[in-house]
Amino acid sequence: METKLSSRTREVIISHEGPTILIGERINPTGKKKLQAALLEGSLDLVRQEAIDQVAAGADVLDVNVGASGVDEVSLLPQAILAVMEVVDVPLCIDSSNPRAIEAALAVYEGRPLVNSVTADEASLSDVLALIKKHDAAVIGLTMDEKGIPPEASRRIELARKIVERAERMGIPREDVVIDCLNMPAAANAAGPLALVEAIAAVKSQLGVNMTLGASNISFGLPDRTLLNGTFLAVAIQLGVNCPVVDVAKVRQYALATDALFGRDSYMRRYIKDFRQRQKQGQQPA
Amino acid sequence: METKLSSRTREVIISHEGPTILIGERINPTGKKKLQAALLEGSLDLVRQEAIDQVAAGADVLDVNVGASGVDEVSLLPQAILAVMEVVDVPLCIDSSNPRAIEAALAVYEGRPLVNSVTADEASLSDVLALIKKHDAAVIGLTMDEKGIPPEASRRIELARKIVERAERMGIPREDVVIDCLNMPAAANAAGPLALVEAIAAVKSQLGVNMTLGASNISFGLPDRTLLNGTFLAVAIQLGVNCPVVDVAKVRQYALATDALFGRDSYMRRYIKDFRQRQKQGQQPA
Repeated sequence: METKLSSRTREVIISHEGPTILIGERINPTGKKKLQAALLEGSLDLVRQEAIDQVAAGADVLDVNVGASGVDEVSLLPQAILAVMEVVDVPLCIDSSNPRAIEAALAVYEGRPLVNSVTADEASLSDVLALIKKHDAAVIGLTMDEKGIPPEASRRIELARKIVERAERMGIPREDVVIDCLNMPAAANAAGPLALVEAIAAVKSQLGVNMTLGASNISFGLPDRTLLNGTFLAVAIQLGVNCPVVDVAKVRQYALATDALFGRDSYMRRYIKDFRQRQKQGQQPA
Repeated sequence: METKLSSRTREVIISHEGPTILIGERINPTGKKKLQAALLEGSLDLVRQEAIDQVAAGADVLDVNVGASGVDEVSLLPQAILAVMEVVDVPLCIDSSNPRAIEAALAVYEGRPLVNSVTADEASLSDVLALIKKHDAAVIGLTMDEKGIPPEASRRIELARKIVERAERMGIPREDVVIDCLNMPAAANAAGPLALVEAIAAVKSQLGVNMTLGASNISFGLPDRTLLNGTFLAVAIQLGVNCPVVDVAKVRQYALATDALFGRDSYMRRYIKDFRQRQKQGQQPA
């Protein structure tokens, strides 16, 4: 099951056999006042800088989201995509809940992007999947619908299946649908992480598709977030999440360690190479 | 499924619902030249110091192993148990492959210990389980037999079942058998960790027993061992290992984070308390 993404010149393959693909989360104004202010002024310098920094930190793909109150995403999202393509050459993840903004971004993107996202809501399924088909892109399917995010694992698996089957009926192969079982803050719902890992394991065994996850949400409101995020990421990767959306600079080493342990890093070459680089840079081991 | 251990005055309960119980690994001369030399001289000062340090670092139980070339375990193991009981008051894990040394240690121990270990080998089953029954102790069952450690998960599960069933026939309840699916260096066998997690998940679902694991072996010969051990520990705990044998000072925070995420730490009180203590001591967050 291979999801193939590309930039102008580079291809990235997401699969359950290969290395975990890290999607950089930081081009997203949610909770970031400076970035919100910059986007409201139409300034994309911070977006460019975040793109450069994340790729330097080891991001394989970058998520690009400019959704903030007062921002015209239909105009700004394609500009942000172009700005990021100016400075880095990794595949991008076009992130918006507005199908018109997604369409405008798809029109300027060079390569094969991932689109974030479609839900199991009827309006989203028909609008977004039509764009995915037309532009031959890959898409992230969120396990939620018009009623919101179901707390039970069983219902999230049903929604994942609904999205995958609808995509297939529209001629989008299953390998181009990446499922997101939706991570929520553990502090708000103590049973959430258990339901989430149950959903992840079931989607892997029942649908076999590739899976993403916004790995940082889980620690919202808690101390030592990197430890919680990294620990959770290890568990999620082992269960089947193979292209998480993360703060790459903070949790890349947890993903590399998990890949090294579970047969996704031949002879542990990437793990050992990364360790040597961190040593050179004088970073302490974990 | 509760395994109850005790020291003179303290009880520790191992269960799949409660917090992960950490068994301190450091009183063991394997690979420790200073401790080997001290034990050969019959000196137990280092053993006492390791006991104090590990309990201060958060160990719930201490493994006590004095097996080294030239050491008379039958004489030294009970002395070491007494020395540890002098300085700390946590339940102990009597660790020897020599049934006579185990018996001598059981004779001096005050409380209900864990015995490390019995294997599925006939001689071990009959000798060690008889001691467990006689002294009303709990025991660690290693998934190996006279032919060694089977590489396949399926065979390890069979051996775990054999040990549990034999114990039950001898009147030792299943809750007093803690299974160890046997961790081996990932560097020596790349498929090892995958087979191991498969065995752990199957033992949990098929036998329901409590499980230990020597969590440090996996990173033998690799750099940044704490990262690998901590990452693997998170995965192992989520799958069902609930009383790992670890270097407590190094990986306790990974266990606490995993417990906090997966519903084994009500309101995340232990995680937050530990974070505050680390902050006071000026330690960097992970």
